[in-house]
Amino acid sequence: MFKKILIANRGEIALRIIRTCREMGIQTVAIYSTADKDSLHVRFADEAVCIGKPQSADSYLNIPHIMAAAEITNADAIHPGYGFLAENAGFAEICAQYNIKFIGPTPQMIRSMGDKITAKETMIAAGVPCIPGSEGLLESIEQARVLAKEMGYPVILKATAGGGGKGMRVVWSDGEIEKAYNTAKQEAAASFKNDGIYMEKFVEEPRHIEIQVAGDQYGTVCHMSERDCSIQRRHQKLVEESPSPFMTPELRQKMGEAAIKAAAAINYESVGTIEFLVDKHRNFYFMEMNTRIQVEHGVTEEVINFDLIKEQIKIAAGIPISGKNYEPQMHAIECRINAEDPYNDFRPSPGTITVLHTPGGHGIRVDSHIYAGYTIPPFYDSMIAKVIAVAQTREEAINTMERALSEYVIEGVKTTIPFHLQLMRNEDFRAGNFTTKFIETFELK
Amino acid sequence: MFKKILIANRGEIALRIIRTCREMGIQTVAIYSTADKDSLHVRFADEAVCIGKPQSADSYLNIPHIMAAAEITNADAIHPGYGFLAENAGFAEICAQYNIKFIGPTPQMIRSMGDKITAKETMIAAGVPCIPGSEGLLESIEQARVLAKEMGYPVILKATAGGGGKGMRVVWSDGEIEKAYNTAKQEAAASFKNDGIYMEKFVEEPRHIEIQVAGDQYGTVCHMSERDCSIQRRHQKLVEESPSPFMTPELRQKMGEAAIKAAAAINYESVGTIEFLVDKHRNFYFMEMNTRIQVEHGVTEEVINFDLIKEQIKIAAGIPISGKNYEPQMHAIECRINAEDPYNDFRPSPGTITVLHTPGGHGIRVDSHIYAGYTIPPFYDSMIAKVIAVAQTREEAINTMERALSEYVIEGVKTTIPFHLQLMRNEDFRAGNFTTKFIETFELK
Repeated sequence: MFKKILIANRGEIALRIIRTCREMGIQTVAIYSTADKDSLHVRFADEAVCIGKPQSADSYLNIPHIMAAAEITNADAIHPGYGFLAENAGFAEICAQYNIKFIGPTPQMIRSMGDKITAKETMIAAGVPCIPGSEGLLESIEQARVLAKEMGYPVILKATAGGGGKGMRVVWSDGEIEKAYNTAKQEAAASFKNDGIYMEKFVEEPRHIEIQVAGDQYGTVCHMSERDCSIQRRHQKLVEESPSPFMTPELRQKMGEAAIKAAAAINYESVGTIEFLVDKHRNFYFMEMNTRIQVEHGVTEEVINFDLIKEQIKIAAGIPISGKNYEPQMHAIECRINAEDPYNDFRPSPGTITVLHTPGGHGIRVDSHIYAGYTIPPFYDSMIAKVIAVAQTREEAINTMERALSEYVIEGVKTTIPFHLQLMRNEDFRAGNFTTKFIETFELK
Repeated sequence: MFKKILIANRGEIALRIIRTCREMGIQTVAIYSTADKDSLHVRFADEAVCIGKPQSADSYLNIPHIMAAAEITNADAIHPGYGFLAENAGFAEICAQYNIKFIGPTPQMIRSMGDKITAKETMIAAGVPCIPGSEGLLESIEQARVLAKEMGYPVILKATAGGGGKGMRVVWSDGEIEKAYNTAKQEAAASFKNDGIYMEKFVEEPRHIEIQVAGDQYGTVCHMSERDCSIQRRHQKLVEESPSPFMTPELRQKMGEAAIKAAAAINYESVGTIEFLVDKHRNFYFMEMNTRIQVEHGVTEEVINFDLIKEQIKIAAGIPISGKNYEPQMHAIECRINAEDPYNDFRPSPGTITVLHTPGGHGIRVDSHIYAGYTIPPFYDSMIAKVIAVAQTREEAINTMERALSEYVIEGVKTTIPFHLQLMRNEDFRAGNFTTKFIETFELK
């Protein structure tokens, strides 16, 4: 087992990793920018090294400084957390050159999943369902018609140069395709001076459901069931839960098998996540694979009673996994608490926390690096805490979350707590009746 | 279901009950003494009524004031928590007279278990093992010899007027009894001017292991496995855990059956605990029944994923229980954090908390009513927090507890955190090698 792990990250995830290391009897090294000198991960690590100025490029993304910190502290492994260098294949390669174990997959695995086109090709070859689409641009209405018939309506036409909904047309039947093709092309030309359009299967009422996987160095892969992350705002996840209220035992088995296929296709080693879009008919399509621990991993930990960071470290140390798949035993929901003003377009609200009272009690887990007197620097992600509620049923977990949020006192900065409180009371949310579009129409009172 | 519950208690247990009420959609009324006006249970309840001066007799034990508070707030039930009026049959009777539901057993049940002699007689009649002993005083050496042979050596002779070990003799064999009898009688006469002595079976290497039970209003009783509470100082529990490291599946089944017999013998209704002494041969003996929720109930909640306060409220509302018994699925350990100076004979250390940082993360539950700036009043129990660590194995739970304790920052008062930290690192404790005598010889460094 490793003797000393350097944590190439900050905030709650750095603290999260320190906690597991301490429980495993492994020494820890924190790195920090000058903006983070009073951060809790610096205080709770066994050693701490300042690696540069506040801007990430000068510190948490500064590979030479990080490697120097690992060298002087004699760390034998580096945990990258999420974000920053977690999916940087070059960094993983440099770690290998320094003979320091990168706690995660190999550079090749990171690369193969980091490039979206390669990833999709790999998944198709492995038999993992991907969103069907035209290979390249459409050349004629006739070609579009044939393709649409093949993949089944509805389909969506998209401008290759597009964005913001311009040049996009959902087509529901053969009768509509000619008009839609022409309109999309005209709009694309007008908006982007490029009338190239392509076609994809249109995913109706999409949900973001991802499968947690783990693979070891000996080719064994397992899955740990799903997380539903459909509650998103501008592609940022806000709330995650497991099990998904949309899940069925059959769908879990199919998605679990597909996720294992996906991971096995690249001989995946470490913990990782296969993200899928699931349509209203419970068809599911590969979106991407995250070759790292995710923000929302705690949701899975609580429903399967399992420490995923410990698993990740053990896998990196060459310990084999059992290969057993895991089913949720409980229901867990996570709310990401951000220092943002939900009444002002979620604008970041850095500053000093003057008063803090953290919720606790049965069914509540809080992962956070804040404390009373802590100043949230403006340079990084605005997430300041993750609250996870666990109970026997989804309804009870929501009630426990609502109770915990109502106890949470953070003064000095604005937070997203009022947003989450209102969401927990929303009838559609409580009914499990939501897609990735839910937050677009959710009105904060 | 009840609409509004008055909580006739303070501190962490008042907060604990408020949390479950909130999760169940039940309104809450806090009562408080003038010393507790800034307490968290006052802040988090829906309503709060001041019921008197700091001394318990004037406030938390003042039945007329409490009933007046219940009347003016229109509460339809009262939860007594633990301590104070929780096992006061008279209080339960008065509640019934006021037509306010006492959340606990009936006055008769409380009385039958409150009186130790009646309780023991009831248990013997129900076939629950009790510590064998002479009925009344010994009249001769010959009688002592016959009795000792019946119950089996070792036995213990005790002065009826005794205390502090005077007039007590453990007898290991028939050859020793005559001398022991005479010495004990002489010592008793010299120390207490009363030479009456009686005999009990001597419990070798005793452990305090208790079984959590629940019974409903329709005669169904179940057990929820054990808690080991052997780590005590002067009969005050300091650490509790489940499962007991001394437990075997056979012993759990036997003790569970005995506990169910004990509860069924009085048609017990509500949650309760049967406390047993277990000797080194795994013989177990009834000590007493606690007809209330206990401080350490959270340990059981974490290993069976179950809210015992919710269960208690549901039973009081007439909802039947399933009757299923529960086995521990995980391992949980609780440390009671007291505002006491462990380096100064555990002397109470009331005062103002100036800095507070509460541990969190995977596997940690904290139940506490303290906050930064809170002043611990000198009038009540010195417990200020309960930390519970949960993991798949006992070793991991201890490691998680050690990690959490090392993160816990409480400044302004002395606490028992250093004691617990050292206990978690103690080899005998880690090996599960301890009895109720353990703390007597535990040296704090």
